[in-house]
Amino acid sequence: MKSLLQHIGSPKDLKTLSEEQLPQLARELRQFIINIVATKEGHLGASLGVVELTLALHYTFDFPNDKLIWDVGHQAYGHKILTGRKDVFDSNRQLGGISGFPKRNESPYDDFGTGHSSTSISAILGMAIASHLKGEKDREHIAVIGDASIASGMAFEGLNHLGVTDTNVLIVLNDNAIGIDPSVGALKKYLTNVKEGKTKAENIFECLNLEYSGPVDGHNLSDLLKALNHLKNRKGPRLLHVITTKGKGLQKAEENQVVYHAPGRFDAQTGERFSKTAGQQPPKFQDVFGYTLVELARENEQIVGITPAMPTGSSLKYMMHALPQRAFDVGIAEQHAVTLAAGMATQGLIPFCTIYSTFLQRGYDQIIHDVALQNVPVIFCLDRAGLVGQDGPTHHGAFDLAYLRCIPNMVVFSPMNEMELRNIMFTAQQGLEHPIAIRYPRGRGVTLHWEQPFSKISIGKGRELKKGTSIALLSVGPLGNEVMPLLKHLEHPEEIGHYDMRFVKPLDTELLHEVFQHYQHVITLEDGCKIGGFGSAIVEFANAHNYTIPIQLFALPDEFISHGTVEELYDICGLNWKHLKSYIESIR
Amino acid sequence: MKSLLQHIGSPKDLKTLSEEQLPQLARELRQFIINIVATKEGHLGASLGVVELTLALHYTFDFPNDKLIWDVGHQAYGHKILTGRKDVFDSNRQLGGISGFPKRNESPYDDFGTGHSSTSISAILGMAIASHLKGEKDREHIAVIGDASIASGMAFEGLNHLGVTDTNVLIVLNDNAIGIDPSVGALKKYLTNVKEGKTKAENIFECLNLEYSGPVDGHNLSDLLKALNHLKNRKGPRLLHVITTKGKGLQKAEENQVVYHAPGRFDAQTGERFSKTAGQQPPKFQDVFGYTLVELARENEQIVGITPAMPTGSSLKYMMHALPQRAFDVGIAEQHAVTLAAGMATQGLIPFCTIYSTFLQRGYDQIIHDVALQNVPVIFCLDRAGLVGQDGPTHHGAFDLAYLRCIPNMVVFSPMNEMELRNIMFTAQQGLEHPIAIRYPRGRGVTLHWEQPFSKISIGKGRELKKGTSIALLSVGPLGNEVMPLLKHLEHPEEIGHYDMRFVKPLDTELLHEVFQHYQHVITLEDGCKIGGFGSAIVEFANAHNYTIPIQLFALPDEFISHGTVEELYDICGLNWKHLKSYIESIR
Repeated sequence: MKSLLQHIGSPKDLKTLSEEQLPQLARELRQFIINIVATKEGHLGASLGVVELTLALHYTFDFPNDKLIWDVGHQAYGHKILTGRKDVFDSNRQLGGISGFPKRNESPYDDFGTGHSSTSISAILGMAIASHLKGEKDREHIAVIGDASIASGMAFEGLNHLGVTDTNVLIVLNDNAIGIDPSVGALKKYLTNVKEGKTKAENIFECLNLEYSGPVDGHNLSDLLKALNHLKNRKGPRLLHVITTKGKGLQKAEENQVVYHAPGRFDAQTGERFSKTAGQQPPKFQDVFGYTLVELARENEQIVGITPAMPTGSSLKYMMHALPQRAFDVGIAEQHAVTLAAGMATQGLIPFCTIYSTFLQRGYDQIIHDVALQNVPVIFCLDRAGLVGQDGPTHHGAFDLAYLRCIPNMVVFSPMNEMELRNIMFTAQQGLEHPIAIRYPRGRGVTLHWEQPFSKISIGKGRELKKGTSIALLSVGPLGNEVMPLLKHLEHPEEIGHYDMRFVKPLDTELLHEVFQHYQHVITLEDGCKIGGFGSAIVEFANAHNYTIPIQLFALPDEFISHGTVEELYDICGLNWKHLKSYIESIR
Repeated sequence: MKSLLQHIGSPKDLKTLSEEQLPQLARELRQFIINIVATKEGHLGASLGVVELTLALHYTFDFPNDKLIWDVGHQAYGHKILTGRKDVFDSNRQLGGISGFPKRNESPYDDFGTGHSSTSISAILGMAIASHLKGEKDREHIAVIGDASIASGMAFEGLNHLGVTDTNVLIVLNDNAIGIDPSVGALKKYLTNVKEGKTKAENIFECLNLEYSGPVDGHNLSDLLKALNHLKNRKGPRLLHVITTKGKGLQKAEENQVVYHAPGRFDAQTGERFSKTAGQQPPKFQDVFGYTLVELARENEQIVGITPAMPTGSSLKYMMHALPQRAFDVGIAEQHAVTLAAGMATQGLIPFCTIYSTFLQRGYDQIIHDVALQNVPVIFCLDRAGLVGQDGPTHHGAFDLAYLRCIPNMVVFSPMNEMELRNIMFTAQQGLEHPIAIRYPRGRGVTLHWEQPFSKISIGKGRELKKGTSIALLSVGPLGNEVMPLLKHLEHPEEIGHYDMRFVKPLDTELLHEVFQHYQHVITLEDGCKIGGFGSAIVEFANAHNYTIPIQLFALPDEFISHGTVEELYDICGLNWKHLKSYIESIR
């Protein structure tokens, strides 16, 4: 059978096909995605689950005149391939290549950039109101959103507004009962009842004044086209409930949906994953967190764990398995997660609330208002701090040091390695006077034998790792590990002192006074934004105490950093030992 | 009839009364609140509306053993009076007096501090899970939340989790169809149907797996007590729907609920408000915003306005009245408001999204992810920036300069006076390359004749207001107005140069180079937090360019600032011309 996909350069080409040809195209599109992700890596299961839905939407509607937003965007690979990016799709997520998420400046078909969940309803409503005001009454505005994402507060706020407008918005609820991990919460339970026909007369979306239709089998193209064509001729806020299977069409991906969300490289035929490495490697920071938390929680009954929908990504799953009564996946609900932790802490529990750095932006007010203002000793464990690599700018944890440092009462710590992470967790669960944010990067640490006995860290105290004669290098976090290769490559390593400051707040002022009195030059090094971050704190300190020696800041520049490997990106940002070496040689 | 209230020092005393005596106590409590708020000012309508509910809760349950959270907390005056604070209630909201909101360190009966809305469900669930883990199965956990607050995303996240737990949580939905302004949205519409008996078999709370009861007349003590006693003997997550009237018992407050939310001083008998002033005064900044927006929107059809539930407080109500199709109250939904604005802006509309500084913390991720990353030119108008006075630490707009300055692409501006606000609004609606945050304070400006013709402001350009010989004073925002009295009181005003920098980002580097080359000493002045704020930006600039002259930062200290008048608080923080004068004299 001759290939259909090879002739599809845009949705226009798609419309030249007959309905009968679409199932074949679906098979080809699915295989195209599998083949490329198998070798180039990326998000798999979400896009496989919406192959038919993607075809049906582009076949029925007239994008980009009509508007289309993919919530989160993991599932948009098929959309990208059909809208002119087939030939560059093998550059997906690579430096200089296309983004793994919809991106406005990549294509006119990407109406709104996504990455974080639950934004699509608000954004599409904004577009629909714009059309309404301009008198463009026939334009359709579609948001495709999963059942895990629609259960987030932001999506509810959007629905609550949408239901009292007369805009042309169609919400396509892609219900596969899973986000990255299986969906949780009362709404998920309710949607299950809907699917099983167990609900009573009026469903929850009708309560919110939306015209509900479905559920429809999201892998049956004929049913999908019928439903969409029907809805195309209706106006106002509508919701179509579509049932799909994440990973559809690749047996292993259907059977193990969590792993095949982003499986790494695998055999395109069998789905078998390739094991990545020979030999032992240092652990991932997330696993150091996950295992250490179980270890501590077995000894300390007050410890509880909280994750907003990231049991696997944060490795809280280990505690959820070992101590299920005390570990909570609250769904995509960062605001709730933070204040839930605050409520627990008021009653003497010791909550470890683990949230990716970039997602904690969703709980910012709650940190200030419910935690820091009341000075409740919640322990925040911020994974994915610093640059995260291929997920790109929506996911880099670039801002946490700056946005947390300005909050009174907060303690902000970044471990240089696995033992530092373990020891600060050990210290924190013994009782703190303030809330603390412990932020650590995506990926692996540097220590093979990391399961060392615990020792306590003094809050607000840094470490002198090496004394030097003229240049003090002050680091926080894992970039401190760049100093070892730096010293090896310098002609005069004896000049360099290295201080792992550990705490961005409170600063170790005693140590800083020593440093500023002893050295002629200070360099700061961090994996966060330059404005308002750690280096900025050092500059504030120096100014407040009238130190006038030069301070050079190594930090992320004031721009959104693209996607690429972590190593490539830090190199572009000038944040590795080579750039430090050039600078140091330039000032000698 | 002899007074009952005078003998109530705690809920224990309340329980010695018979049920029949409670209506009299309700009348006395209501009058007590009216009498004090009439002279001391404060929030009125919310507390009047829950007098019976407050009595019924304290009569039925055993606080503080049971747990009780008042969402937002405007309505907690009766609770405070009944729990040992009757005799100090006339110090409400005054410097050194009790807080206008529940506050943990004020009383063991205040289980959780509130101020911002919609936190109570998450916090009470955290407490209930703690009780559950401790095996305290009989403890009751109650959150009282209004219909406007329960429609916020954060509350939904809490409900979604609550519904799948077996915790002892009772949500009391205080449905009065109004927050500060009338409630909006699909849920409000739905609740109206519930009240009118128009809904079908299963209501929305039952969909979320809560045991629903009600609606109950919230001013009928006997009905309330019956309902609460019934629920007291049940376990698990429950919701009681209580119908109340905001302002109940004071006719004028019932008739004009928006004004009597916080009416200022009034006649305790008639409810008649006292007009505050003789003579003309400068306008409130919020009104300069509100009127100017209408003026601009009449000329520029692309302009739209958005407020999350603050039409009156932000003065967007003027546009909502004049151009109702283009001005939107989206309810307590800051996350949605920000991304809605982003969606609108992608379609060429010019959204003015007005949010209080402290509430924009709720939309922080959306600013980064949906606005700044995509570089969509949304215009944020941040009211209540800086210290807000009697509302205290939950409401001070202390952090916005720091949390916005670290975001790439953001423009951050603070007007020194009314004309600056008008002109930046005029400039922004002509088209910007980036999103902008315009932040201005609570209260009045300084200019009687503020309705001057518009002129354009160059983005990133400050103003030299006065040249000096040795000391440069760099200000942003309204504290710049302290320089005039400062100069009058200095022996050598000719020494002082004054620069209204206007933009915290981008900095006017050209002007700064001039300043640092010309002066021997720099003072920065701002009404935001010292860490990471405007002064910090100046220090970063000086460090980057090797300027070593002293820089003294005048800004808010790194602590949560209490309540009091704005003048008192700025004086405590050292932020007025007197403190500047002392400092300048100290360095001569």
